[in-house]
Amino acid sequence: MPLPERELIQRIRRAASPIRSKLGRGIGDDCAVLDIPRGHEVLVTTDFSLEGVHFRREWHPPDSIGHRCLARGLSDIAAMAGIPRAVFLSLALPADLPQHWVDEFIRGFLNLARLYSVTLAGGDIARSPNGILADIVVSGIIPKGKAVLRSGASPGNIVYVSGTLGASLATLEELRAGKKLRPRGHIRHFYPDPRIALGRYLREHKLASAMIDTSDGLSTDLRHICDESRVGAIIDGAAVPTTRAGNARQLALHGGEDYELLFTAPANKPIPSKIAGVPITRIGAITRGRQIKLQFPDGKLKPLPAAGWQHFA
Amino acid sequence: MPLPERELIQRIRRAASPIRSKLGRGIGDDCAVLDIPRGHEVLVTTDFSLEGVHFRREWHPPDSIGHRCLARGLSDIAAMAGIPRAVFLSLALPADLPQHWVDEFIRGFLNLARLYSVTLAGGDIARSPNGILADIVVSGIIPKGKAVLRSGASPGNIVYVSGTLGASLATLEELRAGKKLRPRGHIRHFYPDPRIALGRYLREHKLASAMIDTSDGLSTDLRHICDESRVGAIIDGAAVPTTRAGNARQLALHGGEDYELLFTAPANKPIPSKIAGVPITRIGAITRGRQIKLQFPDGKLKPLPAAGWQHFA
Repeated sequence: MPLPERELIQRIRRAASPIRSKLGRGIGDDCAVLDIPRGHEVLVTTDFSLEGVHFRREWHPPDSIGHRCLARGLSDIAAMAGIPRAVFLSLALPADLPQHWVDEFIRGFLNLARLYSVTLAGGDIARSPNGILADIVVSGIIPKGKAVLRSGASPGNIVYVSGTLGASLATLEELRAGKKLRPRGHIRHFYPDPRIALGRYLREHKLASAMIDTSDGLSTDLRHICDESRVGAIIDGAAVPTTRAGNARQLALHGGEDYELLFTAPANKPIPSKIAGVPITRIGAITRGRQIKLQFPDGKLKPLPAAGWQHFA
Repeated sequence: MPLPERELIQRIRRAASPIRSKLGRGIGDDCAVLDIPRGHEVLVTTDFSLEGVHFRREWHPPDSIGHRCLARGLSDIAAMAGIPRAVFLSLALPADLPQHWVDEFIRGFLNLARLYSVTLAGGDIARSPNGILADIVVSGIIPKGKAVLRSGASPGNIVYVSGTLGASLATLEELRAGKKLRPRGHIRHFYPDPRIALGRYLREHKLASAMIDTSDGLSTDLRHICDESRVGAIIDGAAVPTTRAGNARQLALHGGEDYELLFTAPANKPIPSKIAGVPITRIGAITRGRQIKLQFPDGKLKPLPAAGWQHFA
């Protein structure tokens, strides 16, 4: 059984206290108080991580679950080109969960938080009637008016993506097939790295017109950009950077949880082939028509359905 | 079954769109962007509402669950003396839940949001493996340095509480006993009203030295103030404003979810007997010793254990 609520909060508060940002006041009051530097806006994102939906205890070690849980929110901050500052963790735990599991979860969570100087500033603890439930809120800052939105893509813009796509789903399919995997050998799935530095670079050099992270899968995430920007796109299937798995093309087009950045830029902006250590690949262009099409090596175009992850689909 | 994720988000977005605050950007991007007026800090609080823990579908109508879910967060903003601005709703729903339930939940949630001009600025939707899970984040603003903290109580300060205590738990005990209740006849439990105007008044008139909301119960919430302020307290049992239920004294001392404000003030500050329509009652005093004691009508003192709500206790 986990420690009683008050002791558990004290234990997490102690573990989190060495991570400092210019924050204000964190755990220990009715609300956290965040100090926002002048000329900045506040970014807020929330993400569920639910046992049986987003992770499984038999597949994912607890420190990986803690890491992934926070990575989802950091990646959303990266996709706005922001700087993460504070995280809030709401955790509902079954009464029969060993405290050791909680400790390992918190270790993985705080290791990633430390890497980006993100303070654990609050949250909530509850007993869960069924399974482990985590919900995180990440708050960040961005210079006023400089957030890179989904809605900024224009016809003629070029579409880029960072890193490779499909590795996370490839690992998930191996887990589903019953394979025993060494988590450290599949870090893209177990310990994904949010592209904070890349997002910030694109903002500081005024390169990106629209941006999103590939959490649901390229086809679905590009749909979000096109919907919010009221445009379409043509994607060069052969150009999409894939991993080496057998089914690589499909995984890259529709697989989620890679947490790369998908962005658009005016055609006259020079985009480096590598930014903050991450390769950048040109994969297509934005069009006036609202459809998203996939171009094959023979030049033929077919509609690209949004076949990434969607709950209740 | 609930609507597919994208349609569900669109439906909630439409329902929420008439509520406007000076916000920035809400639903529709990787993060919400909040515009913070100069000279202000940001308040953030999060609260779980889990089926079987915080509510039951057979006891609570869906609009009451939506209302209570948001009220918890608004009450935390009230307890800092802040002004709520934006709310984020993370909702995990079982696949067999009727969409009608979701619509009613959202209606109750947004009715309360509208009352306080709080914008629904984002959140997350997921399938729940078991039961309905809601987690809310409320963000507010407060003039810099003016948040009323739990840590500001000093020996000699007077302890006050708003309204009456115990009504919410009294209703819960009737529900537990199998009574059928008319929700509109027991609004303190089903539709609690967060004390935003009271919190603000106390800040603007510089009256309160420390404050918390009575979400866990007087004995536990006072313990939080005393812990963070490193003080103790003597509470006059007969002075605690109770409801009319049979077991009124115990309910008032330990019952949670009344969402009243418990605050301390220097002895020389004149506290009105009613603020923003809510009666204010003097119930005790802060002491140097760290114990919390209950004073009986004969003058005898006994320790008051923190016997309010605690998960995993």
